[in-house]
Amino acid sequence: MRIPFETVKAELKRVMMEAGLSEEQAEICAQTHAESSCDGVYSHGVNRVPRFIRYIRKGWVNINGKPELIKASGCLENYDGNLGIGIINAKLSMNRACELAEKYGIGVVCLRNTTHWMRGGTYAWDAAKKGYMAICWTNTESAMPAWGAKTPSVGNNPFCIGIPSKKHDPLVLDMAMSQYSYGKLQVLRLKGEQLPFPGGYDTEGNITSDPGEIEKTMRMFPMGYWKGSGMAIALNIAAAVLANGKATYALDKVGKGSCGECCQIFIAINPYIFSTEEEVEEIFEGTIKQLSEVERIDPDKPVTYPGQRTVRTRKYSIENGVEVDESIWKEIQSL
Amino acid sequence: MRIPFETVKAELKRVMMEAGLSEEQAEICAQTHAESSCDGVYSHGVNRVPRFIRYIRKGWVNINGKPELIKASGCLENYDGNLGIGIINAKLSMNRACELAEKYGIGVVCLRNTTHWMRGGTYAWDAAKKGYMAICWTNTESAMPAWGAKTPSVGNNPFCIGIPSKKHDPLVLDMAMSQYSYGKLQVLRLKGEQLPFPGGYDTEGNITSDPGEIEKTMRMFPMGYWKGSGMAIALNIAAAVLANGKATYALDKVGKGSCGECCQIFIAINPYIFSTEEEVEEIFEGTIKQLSEVERIDPDKPVTYPGQRTVRTRKYSIENGVEVDESIWKEIQSL
Repeated sequence: MRIPFETVKAELKRVMMEAGLSEEQAEICAQTHAESSCDGVYSHGVNRVPRFIRYIRKGWVNINGKPELIKASGCLENYDGNLGIGIINAKLSMNRACELAEKYGIGVVCLRNTTHWMRGGTYAWDAAKKGYMAICWTNTESAMPAWGAKTPSVGNNPFCIGIPSKKHDPLVLDMAMSQYSYGKLQVLRLKGEQLPFPGGYDTEGNITSDPGEIEKTMRMFPMGYWKGSGMAIALNIAAAVLANGKATYALDKVGKGSCGECCQIFIAINPYIFSTEEEVEEIFEGTIKQLSEVERIDPDKPVTYPGQRTVRTRKYSIENGVEVDESIWKEIQSL
Repeated sequence: MRIPFETVKAELKRVMMEAGLSEEQAEICAQTHAESSCDGVYSHGVNRVPRFIRYIRKGWVNINGKPELIKASGCLENYDGNLGIGIINAKLSMNRACELAEKYGIGVVCLRNTTHWMRGGTYAWDAAKKGYMAICWTNTESAMPAWGAKTPSVGNNPFCIGIPSKKHDPLVLDMAMSQYSYGKLQVLRLKGEQLPFPGGYDTEGNITSDPGEIEKTMRMFPMGYWKGSGMAIALNIAAAVLANGKATYALDKVGKGSCGECCQIFIAINPYIFSTEEEVEEIFEGTIKQLSEVERIDPDKPVTYPGQRTVRTRKYSIENGVEVDESIWKEIQSL
């Protein structure tokens, strides 16, 4: 069902304040979760709120935890997240990276001991809206098998790139390392549909496009098979080394749910150091023209750059209400 | 056939000097191409040398071109590659990024108007050997269809991450944006084999695992389908914006072969800013232990992190000779 954005946000805010968040914290978190659903990222939007509340109640998220500066070295800073609210820790970190980028051209905030940041793209959008390019990623506990393995052994860490434009939609890539998310598998299983391309292994060890089978085995394909697996390992080690925090193998032992004590890296860059605003817009315009002129597989489906479809989904949700799952909405109302 | 490393290198050096490279230039390029084949990356190793020589003869690579500093801003620098030799321009750039990282913790060299850097991993290996983390990528002319398109419209830009270790093999990810390279398609076609997973579309517009069909249509799958397509677009725009150079659509119009006038970004980071050497090694050791303990799909195939298998291939090639295609070797000898 579709519910007006402000109604969704108000209800999430109420639930969060009842879970102990301050009004300011609840405002930021409710806004962010509502925005994710508004943009079509349901898995980390409204759908994720009940789990966030459970994590607070279990003490896996410390609502009083704040990022604490451990060490600074010019444009690079290292913070301990003190298991604070993932969204707020991450927003403060990307904001700080942008401040550093304003001063130094580039800013790098390396955050350790934080909690789930929900939708990774949030922070690339934040930076792009402020006029900064962004690269950010997180590590996670083991969430899918490494390539060649049957058992979960690499994280499903998202990798995000944001590039601002003053005239066009910003480019925002928000890409998990699995080919499909568990959220997507669930949605298609409930509809009785198959995946468009094989997504992992079934209970007999064969490659399958059946979402329900992959949910059972948890043997998802990394995106691009060996490529996504290798990239997940690289991002994981890079995050742990840069933030002086825990890598996937260590997160597996923490036992504080998804992403408890994880590391996140936030890089912001001033895009106008070497290019003018006009030159940046020319690059966007040339790319938009190129993609508009391709021969399409489906004439009704335009070829876009990452972020463009999100903006259209957002506009539709603002005008027509945010799509919310009825059972999850009832669960939230009862929290 | 297998040829000793030094013999391969000497022959490549001879050919390059005859094409007009100075002894110093030829030494660096011959070493780099020989190393790529030594590491198993044949497509950009020995196999690529005849094309490199053709590019020089056509004037698409300017052997007198050198990187020229356009603008510096602290740890960020912008160079014009003046269409110089891609390998040498890229090596100088990564080296400069490491110097900047030594001083500032991070260094970013944004190179425009350069030529094909051959194997992207070369520069991540270089940085890792010097003790720096590296992130580097290039943009390219259109090399595969964007997701949803039938016609080439995104580059097949590799993205590389390097992480040094003082005790273990460095981690080096070197990942093109297509699921398979044309080199791989050719090798499997000649062997009469199918791809392990579908790799693109056949001449009738159906998804296929037949390498020869994909060579005909040039409709390769990006890695992870929509994901690799989106990442290719993001890396392309990011490179052009940061280096104040040409994006894919503009490279398509240059007409100086693969990567003529392209942009490359080299980021080096000191890994010991926030972590000690011991802490970095602990992260490597924990990850190695985790990957060694997984349940393997094939008991004979260990699960590794990117770079580990390369080191084993390299060792084997040094001991037993570098694998070189006989017809290409004859072509090189006749140059």
